[in-house]
Amino acid sequence: MSLPVPVRRSYAACVPAFAEHRDTPREFLERCLEDLSVFEPTVGAFVHLDIPAARDAADAATARWRDARPLSRIDGMPVGLKDLIETANMPTQCGSAVFEGACSGRDAASVMALRAAGAVILGKTVTTEFAARVARGTRNPWDPARTPGGSSSGSAAAVGCGMLPAALGTQVIGSLLRPASYCGAYAFKPTVGAINRGGSHDGLSQSAHGPISATLAEAWIVAREIADRAGGDPGSPGLLGPHAVPAARAPVRIGLLETAGWGAAEPAARAALDAVLEALATAGVTVLRRQYHAGLDRLEHLLERATPASLALVDYESVWPLNAYRARDPGKLSAFLRERLSGAERMTPADYRALLAAREAARGAHAVVAADVDALVTLSATGAAPVGIESTGDTAFNVPASWLGAPALSLPLLEAQGLPLGVQLVGAPHRDADLFSTAAWLEALLAV
Amino acid sequence: MSLPVPVRRSYAACVPAFAEHRDTPREFLERCLEDLSVFEPTVGAFVHLDIPAARDAADAATARWRDARPLSRIDGMPVGLKDLIETANMPTQCGSAVFEGACSGRDAASVMALRAAGAVILGKTVTTEFAARVARGTRNPWDPARTPGGSSSGSAAAVGCGMLPAALGTQVIGSLLRPASYCGAYAFKPTVGAINRGGSHDGLSQSAHGPISATLAEAWIVAREIADRAGGDPGSPGLLGPHAVPAARAPVRIGLLETAGWGAAEPAARAALDAVLEALATAGVTVLRRQYHAGLDRLEHLLERATPASLALVDYESVWPLNAYRARDPGKLSAFLRERLSGAERMTPADYRALLAAREAARGAHAVVAADVDALVTLSATGAAPVGIESTGDTAFNVPASWLGAPALSLPLLEAQGLPLGVQLVGAPHRDADLFSTAAWLEALLAV
Repeated sequence: MSLPVPVRRSYAACVPAFAEHRDTPREFLERCLEDLSVFEPTVGAFVHLDIPAARDAADAATARWRDARPLSRIDGMPVGLKDLIETANMPTQCGSAVFEGACSGRDAASVMALRAAGAVILGKTVTTEFAARVARGTRNPWDPARTPGGSSSGSAAAVGCGMLPAALGTQVIGSLLRPASYCGAYAFKPTVGAINRGGSHDGLSQSAHGPISATLAEAWIVAREIADRAGGDPGSPGLLGPHAVPAARAPVRIGLLETAGWGAAEPAARAALDAVLEALATAGVTVLRRQYHAGLDRLEHLLERATPASLALVDYESVWPLNAYRARDPGKLSAFLRERLSGAERMTPADYRALLAAREAARGAHAVVAADVDALVTLSATGAAPVGIESTGDTAFNVPASWLGAPALSLPLLEAQGLPLGVQLVGAPHRDADLFSTAAWLEALLAV
Repeated sequence: MSLPVPVRRSYAACVPAFAEHRDTPREFLERCLEDLSVFEPTVGAFVHLDIPAARDAADAATARWRDARPLSRIDGMPVGLKDLIETANMPTQCGSAVFEGACSGRDAASVMALRAAGAVILGKTVTTEFAARVARGTRNPWDPARTPGGSSSGSAAAVGCGMLPAALGTQVIGSLLRPASYCGAYAFKPTVGAINRGGSHDGLSQSAHGPISATLAEAWIVAREIADRAGGDPGSPGLLGPHAVPAARAPVRIGLLETAGWGAAEPAARAALDAVLEALATAGVTVLRRQYHAGLDRLEHLLERATPASLALVDYESVWPLNAYRARDPGKLSAFLRERLSGAERMTPADYRALLAAREAARGAHAVVAADVDALVTLSATGAAPVGIESTGDTAFNVPASWLGAPALSLPLLEAQGLPLGVQLVGAPHRDADLFSTAAWLEALLAV
């Protein structure tokens, strides 16, 4: 299981060469497939691959770039899809025996948008069982003895080692940010509702679709190209912001979000974040801390129970779909999910309404803070990916953005134990583009 | 096509007799089936029936009542399900050739709740094609030359003539209230989100599940029993209000909602509503009119374009699902829907956001008025069911409650041309129970 050091592979960086006919989407795909041949036998990022179809699609994109008529900035981009997201030409198995071999026969809204933009669907990436906790064997490309994180395990692993420049994932607790942190990729968890989830098995109220990507720019581009074509969830305004990648802009004030993760973070991870805070201060950014900011302190207080509360909320909202899966064949649902379902079935509508009220209170407190800062900064994980592939790691740093319905980015700019670690930025709902501006500036700062 | 005069059939009225062993759910079902044998060959309310399974379920309920262990107030109640709502043991065909014979293999959240409460699923009722405009042959039990309305055509027709005491429908524009009005049944369109729509092909932002029923009490009971078990949509508090049917309570102030329908209403229909207003005034209720109430006038103004705006909003939100259906086989989508889809594909996210903003403005204006009145009153349709079964009638009176996300009831207390006509009450979001209290009082008033 000796692998080369993973390197991310950017598609956006090659677009000028496509336009000038020095490179082609087909050649790009072949480079992805070379990395795939090296890593995939060990990593197991994909549950389904269709290389011939991808080559055909890449050839069609190559012809369009040759004719100077690309469909979009992502025309020809190889992408992966978390296997919760339906595809007309591939099975959608949700990481569960319940859906083994199942084909819905339709493309999800996001997939339809990706195809319309010319993207090349290389395959379906591994998800934990129904995006919950039971892992399905994917390994971390940086160290196969470690978890890639979850639930968007395969999407993060594939992007982390250059098999793909981008892949879609979903997050309801921490399923985009944490695996991206562990695998050394970027992740964008948009404002809840910003990307249409139609045709995907992630219909919970704080779930969001988002890209895991090789670069910050590609996170924006992929999300933007999808949202332009598919819109947001019904009733949501969809992803707001410009067509172009938002330019870097220096923040004035940044709030430090400790979250319940701070106490659990490894010393090396805390030191890495401390260095970020020092760099911010040196650059003249005011870093607000809960000890000196009443609004931030109130927010932290309201976030203390965000993980158990989110889990309970997700469980209640999952009673119907899990019940429907169990009804097909109880033996095909893991013992873990059967137990979660039993617990959820004891919850009452009043229990659920109390959770909604707590979430609204936290969102209200965040709105107060968000009006006072350019972004909140924290870690994306408590440290490097843990050893073992049964657990997908600690979600404590990831849940706040999910609970708040807020946009968040994980930037693979830190390390711990010589392995990747993400720094996380959390923005105000519907101000996703501003968050990218702050992130672009932070990336330049830390690159110095 | 000579049919007897339709009579609704209440299940709730028989519950005391079940408890006292003077009647049984199985005997009740047989009485429904007698009416079914008389009406169904002409009316065509069902697209799928499973009488043997219904008899088995009714026998099981009969045994539970005999043992004084009913699962709920609706244990043994025969119900129908609009054929957008998925069922594990019956096909779900959505009124479309695209889904001919299709079985999803799972029960929708509402169906799972109904079964858990002991309800007897008699069959799937006819819907127009994907709940839009193309009718699928159902006839009005009061006059088979006339439409039953739509899109919940079969549910309203079946309940209107005693084939069922209750059936589920859905409404995104006017698909519960109008068919109930035309067929002489009650309908309850709850606050948007109040009943979990999981597993139903009505995922649009102003769509709602609701019962069409033989009595006002049964509308509450059915909705309550479902919401207690399935909750509301993810992120919604679900149906609020007591377990018991809300008691009648005299309103103090009622607002007259003219809507875009007033100009289109038949003279007989307007006269019928005028009589209601006179009865209200005689009973000491203050009836507010837009000419003398600035808030009501502003609301009416903002509702003027609610129909075209709702249609455009629904079209934009339908781009993904319709596109997915078209991709399977374009020839199986009606020319009407193909044209709607083409128009919707030309809409931009900005167009959609403008519609959302208009809807929010109308909801804001309604909140101001709702704080000042017990309910709004209007007609449920412009008159009796029109002759012909191609068109499902004019939606003008129905769209306000959909656009406002507000609870609404249609009560079959009026008539025009000797045919049923509903009086409609619209309440404040999440105050569905208060609306039932006002409705119960109005029903008693008009019965005098």
